[in-house]
Amino acid sequence: MAQEGIHDLGHSRLDTDREARTGDPEVVYGAGKTPEQVVEILAALHEAHPDRAVLATRVTEQAVDAVVAALSGAVVDTVAGAVTLGPLPTARGTVAVVSAGTSDAPVAAEAALTARVFGAGVQQVNDVGVSGLHRVMGVRDDLAAADCLVVVAGMEGALPSVVGGLTGVPLVAVPTSVGYGASFGGLAALLAMLNSCAPGVTVVNIDNGFGAGVFAARVARNARDRT
Amino acid sequence: MAQEGIHDLGHSRLDTDREARTGDPEVVYGAGKTPEQVVEILAALHEAHPDRAVLATRVTEQAVDAVVAALSGAVVDTVAGAVTLGPLPTARGTVAVVSAGTSDAPVAAEAALTARVFGAGVQQVNDVGVSGLHRVMGVRDDLAAADCLVVVAGMEGALPSVVGGLTGVPLVAVPTSVGYGASFGGLAALLAMLNSCAPGVTVVNIDNGFGAGVFAARVARNARDRT
Amino acid sequence: MAQEGIHDLGHSRLDTDREARTGDPEVVYGAGKTPEQVVEILAALHEAHPDRAVLATRVTEQAVDAVVAALSGAVVDTVAGAVTLGPLPTARGTVAVVSAGTSDAPVAAEAALTARVFGAGVQQVNDVGVSGLHRVMGVRDDLAAADCLVVVAGMEGALPSVVGGLTGVPLVAVPTSVGYGASFGGLAALLAMLNSCAPGVTVVNIDNGFGAGVFAARVARNARDRT
Amino acid sequence: MAQEGIHDLGHSRLDTDREARTGDPEVVYGAGKTPEQVVEILAALHEAHPDRAVLATRVTEQAVDAVVAALSGAVVDTVAGAVTLGPLPTARGTVAVVSAGTSDAPVAAEAALTARVFGAGVQQVNDVGVSGLHRVMGVRDDLAAADCLVVVAGMEGALPSVVGGLTGVPLVAVPTSVGYGASFGGLAALLAMLNSCAPGVTVVNIDNGFGAGVFAARVARNARDRT
Amino acid sequence: MAQEGIHDLGHSRLDTDREARTGDPEVVYGAGKTPEQVVEILAALHEAHPDRAVLATRVTEQAVDAVVAALSGAVVDTVAGAVTLGPLPTARGTVAVVSAGTSDAPVAAEAALTARVFGAGVQQVNDVGVSGLHRVMGVRDDLAAADCLVVVAGMEGALPSVVGGLTGVPLVAVPTSVGYGASFGGLAALLAMLNSCAPGVTVVNIDNGFGAGVFAARVARNARDRT
Amino acid sequence: MAQEGIHDLGHSRLDTDREARTGDPEVVYGAGKTPEQVVEILAALHEAHPDRAVLATRVTEQAVDAVVAALSGAVVDTVAGAVTLGPLPTARGTVAVVSAGTSDAPVAAEAALTARVFGAGVQQVNDVGVSGLHRVMGVRDDLAAADCLVVVAGMEGALPSVVGGLTGVPLVAVPTSVGYGASFGGLAALLAMLNSCAPGVTVVNIDNGFGAGVFAARVARNARDRT
Amino acid sequence: MAQEGIHDLGHSRLDTDREARTGDPEVVYGAGKTPEQVVEILAALHEAHPDRAVLATRVTEQAVDAVVAALSGAVVDTVAGAVTLGPLPTARGTVAVVSAGTSDAPVAAEAALTARVFGAGVQQVNDVGVSGLHRVMGVRDDLAAADCLVVVAGMEGALPSVVGGLTGVPLVAVPTSVGYGASFGGLAALLAMLNSCAPGVTVVNIDNGFGAGVFAARVARNARDRT
Amino acid sequence: MAQEGIHDLGHSRLDTDREARTGDPEVVYGAGKTPEQVVEILAALHEAHPDRAVLATRVTEQAVDAVVAALSGAVVDTVAGAVTLGPLPTARGTVAVVSAGTSDAPVAAEAALTARVFGAGVQQVNDVGVSGLHRVMGVRDDLAAADCLVVVAGMEGALPSVVGGLTGVPLVAVPTSVGYGASFGGLAALLAMLNSCAPGVTVVNIDNGFGAGVFAARVARNARDRT
Repeated sequence: MAQEGIHDLGHSRLDTDREARTGDPEVVYGAGKTPEQVVEILAALHEAHPDRAVLATRVTEQAVDAVVAALSGAVVDTVAGAVTLGPLPTARGTVAVVSAGTSDAPVAAEAALTARVFGAGVQQVNDVGVSGLHRVMGVRDDLAAADCLVVVAGMEGALPSVVGGLTGVPLVAVPTSVGYGASFGGLAALLAMLNSCAPGVTVVNIDNGFGAGVFAARVARNARDRT
Repeated sequence: MAQEGIHDLGHSRLDTDREARTGDPEVVYGAGKTPEQVVEILAALHEAHPDRAVLATRVTEQAVDAVVAALSGAVVDTVAGAVTLGPLPTARGTVAVVSAGTSDAPVAAEAALTARVFGAGVQQVNDVGVSGLHRVMGVRDDLAAADCLVVVAGMEGALPSVVGGLTGVPLVAVPTSVGYGASFGGLAALLAMLNSCAPGVTVVNIDNGFGAGVFAARVARNARDRT
Repeated sequence: MAQEGIHDLGHSRLDTDREARTGDPEVVYGAGKTPEQVVEILAALHEAHPDRAVLATRVTEQAVDAVVAALSGAVVDTVAGAVTLGPLPTARGTVAVVSAGTSDAPVAAEAALTARVFGAGVQQVNDVGVSGLHRVMGVRDDLAAADCLVVVAGMEGALPSVVGGLTGVPLVAVPTSVGYGASFGGLAALLAMLNSCAPGVTVVNIDNGFGAGVFAARVARNARDRT
Repeated sequence: MAQEGIHDLGHSRLDTDREARTGDPEVVYGAGKTPEQVVEILAALHEAHPDRAVLATRVTEQAVDAVVAALSGAVVDTVAGAVTLGPLPTARGTVAVVSAGTSDAPVAAEAALTARVFGAGVQQVNDVGVSGLHRVMGVRDDLAAADCLVVVAGMEGALPSVVGGLTGVPLVAVPTSVGYGASFGGLAALLAMLNSCAPGVTVVNIDNGFGAGVFAARVARNARDRT
Repeated sequence: MAQEGIHDLGHSRLDTDREARTGDPEVVYGAGKTPEQVVEILAALHEAHPDRAVLATRVTEQAVDAVVAALSGAVVDTVAGAVTLGPLPTARGTVAVVSAGTSDAPVAAEAALTARVFGAGVQQVNDVGVSGLHRVMGVRDDLAAADCLVVVAGMEGALPSVVGGLTGVPLVAVPTSVGYGASFGGLAALLAMLNSCAPGVTVVNIDNGFGAGVFAARVARNARDRT
Repeated sequence: MAQEGIHDLGHSRLDTDREARTGDPEVVYGAGKTPEQVVEILAALHEAHPDRAVLATRVTEQAVDAVVAALSGAVVDTVAGAVTLGPLPTARGTVAVVSAGTSDAPVAAEAALTARVFGAGVQQVNDVGVSGLHRVMGVRDDLAAADCLVVVAGMEGALPSVVGGLTGVPLVAVPTSVGYGASFGGLAALLAMLNSCAPGVTVVNIDNGFGAGVFAARVARNARDRT
Repeated sequence: MAQEGIHDLGHSRLDTDREARTGDPEVVYGAGKTPEQVVEILAALHEAHPDRAVLATRVTEQAVDAVVAALSGAVVDTVAGAVTLGPLPTARGTVAVVSAGTSDAPVAAEAALTARVFGAGVQQVNDVGVSGLHRVMGVRDDLAAADCLVVVAGMEGALPSVVGGLTGVPLVAVPTSVGYGASFGGLAALLAMLNSCAPGVTVVNIDNGFGAGVFAARVARNARDRT
Repeated sequence: MAQEGIHDLGHSRLDTDREARTGDPEVVYGAGKTPEQVVEILAALHEAHPDRAVLATRVTEQAVDAVVAALSGAVVDTVAGAVTLGPLPTARGTVAVVSAGTSDAPVAAEAALTARVFGAGVQQVNDVGVSGLHRVMGVRDDLAAADCLVVVAGMEGALPSVVGGLTGVPLVAVPTSVGYGASFGGLAALLAMLNSCAPGVTVVNIDNGFGAGVFAARVARNARDRT
């Protein structure tokens, strides 16, 4: 069953037609894959897209070591737990990635790196939770200047509602699994974001910095120049 | 089985010992009771506590009519859906009741009336949701001057986290069932409030303005003078 | 407590500063409001923004009648259950609103109308559920030409994943409460969309056509020209 | 209490009457059993059914080692995590096992092996998720030629709806626990499949490749010849 | 956008290609449709498939009246809440529909009628709940003689496990919303059936007699003759 | 299919063998049955068991009227919403039915009546909720003298834990749907009772006074004399 | 605060008054306690009740070793994960403990041992799941001869409904956490048992063999002689 | 972006303005932080507030060791899993911390230490669960003498309802994750406390001794003298 648009590695069938359809190549989701599989898929994607960075997310330490040993030029983002191979595309537009607490850093980093790999410029603002409003108020102008916002928060997930009331920039909210007890693994933050009283807040899965980064980059790189 | 501290009405056994134990008389929870039962219990409680207002909450329109017809001196709070009979106690301390949206008004009114019946002064601030922060920032000094805060919000329930970051006044959060879809009848707001990143936020049941009012009044009336 | 940026109607405090902050005026969420309140708020918003349509959503039949009787120039969208007052802004960019089944029509209509009120052009495509793939394949080029997609589906909520694999246009998914049994009021579709295997799908609350329309319009009206 | 139709091993009481009642012998569910128990039960079942393969599923590595050491002729399927002992029955009819992603492979393998042990022929098609529709469209004729389909998917679980719209072959959907966050261990995929808009989709428990394989084999081996 | 394989009624776009793809025409799901819409769609489907019965399920009393008034030849099944128009196909194979309690009758009737419309013969056995085992034991031979079983039960949903241990006939379980309290609208029965200890039980959505009937008919009409 | 031990009424198949197997005749569960069906089944059960009361529970007002009109000798318990026909058996042993609040009365009454119909003596104690402990402490000796306790409570469901710590009498807890918000229809009380720290508390479904009454009567009527 | 009826060990305050109130001494719940604590509490309880066995449940291997080393006469039940110290009371009445599958053995063993420690005789019947009904039918007379039944099952939890239809002996159902996927840690079995269609089934917490054993022993030891 | 009121450590941005706003400095939430981070933040907070104890909660053993090694004067509370640095403030008012069982000790200890760090005096009462009421009755006067109560309980969470009926002192309930099975990680206790029939009970997140301690200290230190 050799099919066009598919690169069959045995364990996986790469969707090499994806860039033609959607503008961006496939990405390696590292969770549940062996280090060897991550290396092999990343190499195959790089070969198919030599002029543009390809990305592996949720990569274990073992897989990071295997990638670094096998693929010269691989760049590791330890906070995001991700690896890139190949040159980043020229940045168009700006994504601002805002996070509420220290523990949200890995998800924010995944969003930021993904947005860069998908062609947007990124500005990151960390640790501006709503219990100290002066922190988010202090960066209000930076937020208003972005083409798309990614707002990352765990616990009660209130930050997107506050930010969404300050600007009209399109806003993607990312709930994280930071919390305990009745946070139920991020469910509390997810529900809060889905019920935001600020109009126009959209939401992705818990801890899904990747998805938010893809979406925000697509918005930002297509935005008209604001200067 | 005639027991001390119990007034047996047949359908209900009033806990006439409660004021001695807890400082406050029993309250009529009107939901699920017939108009006749509400009238009868309210009258019995008033007879036991003639010098201090007794309260019936969640009273249907039919029961309101029956109470007004049967008990002269009954005072109706139509927003709260509640009735009082007898003079309010002298107010000690101040409870500030803050609500996020127009639809939260009945719950906020129940909290405010209850706090007055339980002996506190009340200041009410409505419609200061987090998607327009200037509204809550504008009343910041009033909030800081209170002895206890009751913060009422539905949807994503973010207001207690924002208020809790602005002052150190003890804060009781009341989630409401205002919302739709993934609000799941107030569950989203409840979970958000339980996971608040602002330290020292406590929570009551969904739509439980009564419980918040009782608690806040007990805190406020025991507070030392702040002048 | 007269505050700048607030128009106090007693029952509601309008956020008249919102357009300055976010680029768009406040909207009347009609659920739970009396016909009189809807009329009064809509009139006040229209007065504050005479040159640009203001919007009331989730308006009951009684409120529609009251609005039509009181406010000449009000335009009713019966499928969306919404009313506008004032001229629509000039459309910039294109939002494509795609829905899976006949019963999803009200949510899709709310999204479409909202996007228009918020300044985008709209193309609507109905009844292209995944159990007959030729229907969505037949409109593939229209989808790829839009600046932002709104994909509306109930039951198993699979349509966003299929559409998200066909194009790289930013995609907002709207789960609906269409279904029964283990759909749990739209929860099944909501979870499916949050777990979409297509990268870059974002999600709003169940039946929240309004939120999707706001977001998509903001993306589309800021998009660079594609011709 | 020596009973007919029961082989008592102390820790377990084998249902040796099952083949007479249902046409198929009992199977060893390896989870939670010691390697010694797996060996002992497998041997006892093999002795009772020497002419037909008996099956142990969800077998740990330790149990696999113990079985291989103790029972000559045991065949291990490492992807499925299962062991067979004895000759496979002659295949009648065809089950097509289709899976959405690489990580669904163990569940698909369990379904495939089970269907073979229960007497059907099997064709396996991997990694044809809905975000790249050309992959499933490319195998459409193979699917239509089967007597029963087993469709395995995690995350949003959309594949059965797509496949179910392409053919009228009886289709058993298997949700997997592949995913994170709001997948809630496979719940999202399970609910999606139960709410499929394609008529005639049935569902088994999360990760229950075994159950799907049993069911599909029973359908396929009783199907009339299609040539 | 006139597309092949689609009959556009304005409110709905009929999938007239479905019989070619799947062997069976589309069905009218009456819930949420107006009587006029049900009549119009049913008429259009009948026109497209004059030689074979078309089906409308979950039809309200008003819609039944409208159909009977407008479409001569329409046949009403009041227990199932369904209508057919046109001659039933010749029955091939046998589906046995078994239900646990009196209140499960509408779901069982929907399954039985659907199976007939989709081309199978049907035998129905009612009120054989597990708390009186002699009832199900008394029909054991009838069950074993069928080509596919549909087992309908609410409350604890135990009947499929008992029946599934008695025969090896493919078995589709249908949980119903019959019950109260911790049945949670059929969730208890649904979970029980998904966890059945009898191998090879598959499950459909709560109250989904239609889906079970479609599936079972497809299995039965393709089964080889057993005589 | 005429079967021994079954009385077929068309809509229902009575399990007339049940008394032989379990010691007690079948009971009419009135919910979801028409008044005519309730009358017909009750009459048939009475005819089969003329010397012993038969019972119908959850009977609507309409069905009560129909029963009273059709069956002379029928006795109505309006609080329990139940009807009996025929003489109560001689009481053996004592069941004490204890309830926490006024609103729990219907469930407690159903339990009490059922216990009497199943052959036990009953002592009822109402409105002894844990927020006024003196009420339950005052009846402690009565509780300790019973052969089995049925403890009925809604809201937080704490009463069984308190009572279970006071005596060693076997205790069946009945959660009720009394409450609102995060009571989730009785789920809070159900979970509390299942997690009781008092050893030996067993639980039935929410509002299932009938089941508790059956169980308690069976325990009490088999208890040895305590005098 | 030295209180009567309390033996204060520092980490725990033993309820030495419990036997006087309830007829049975306190039991050591070993989960979450250190081996030293288990030894110390068990020794203290044994000293307070030298003539009657005291019990520790959910004891880790380390705690078992510590107990055996420190307390001569301690008897270990390895299947139940429990330890007793002191002579078992004379057995009165009979509890039959019935379990559905091999993996339910630890819970069944805990129930059986607890019932013996609380003064009942016990008969144990293992591995009689409903998918092979002949197994439970074969022990029907033994079940009918008991004074109380404890029925233990995981997965779909159907066994109590089947057994409850066979006899009128009081029946306590114990759901276990045996299962995977949509069993949700025993929730499926718990809900099934709460919704049993067999009248008079009561339920305890998931895996709570201890609670079932306490309850059943209290019923059995108070039962009148049946000879 | 150097902002006033923020001390930027790179990994965290300390809210040094918090004491000015709320009266109390920020606290280190140790979960998910490295030992080095805990040391660094604690040192920075101590430097900013040298005259008043600063607190780190949920500190791992490794972090405790690192703190003790690096920061002379650090005081470890091993039961609470917390560390303080600097002198405790003078105690004003009294918080009584009451817990139901031995396993609730860590949460109770966290509440007690936090209340002391936030400026209140504390009285602790352990192991007074409701299954032995004499234990809580014996400390009734101590409870009534406090300015605020913190009541800690797992399992069915009944203790706050009992205590709340004994006194009118403001009461904060803390559900703990102590329990198993249908406790669902503390959910049962949480729901019970939210539905307490005792008026004026407020609740914090599961295991959130810290939040309860903050709140109670704020109430107690502002309470008027009661002598």
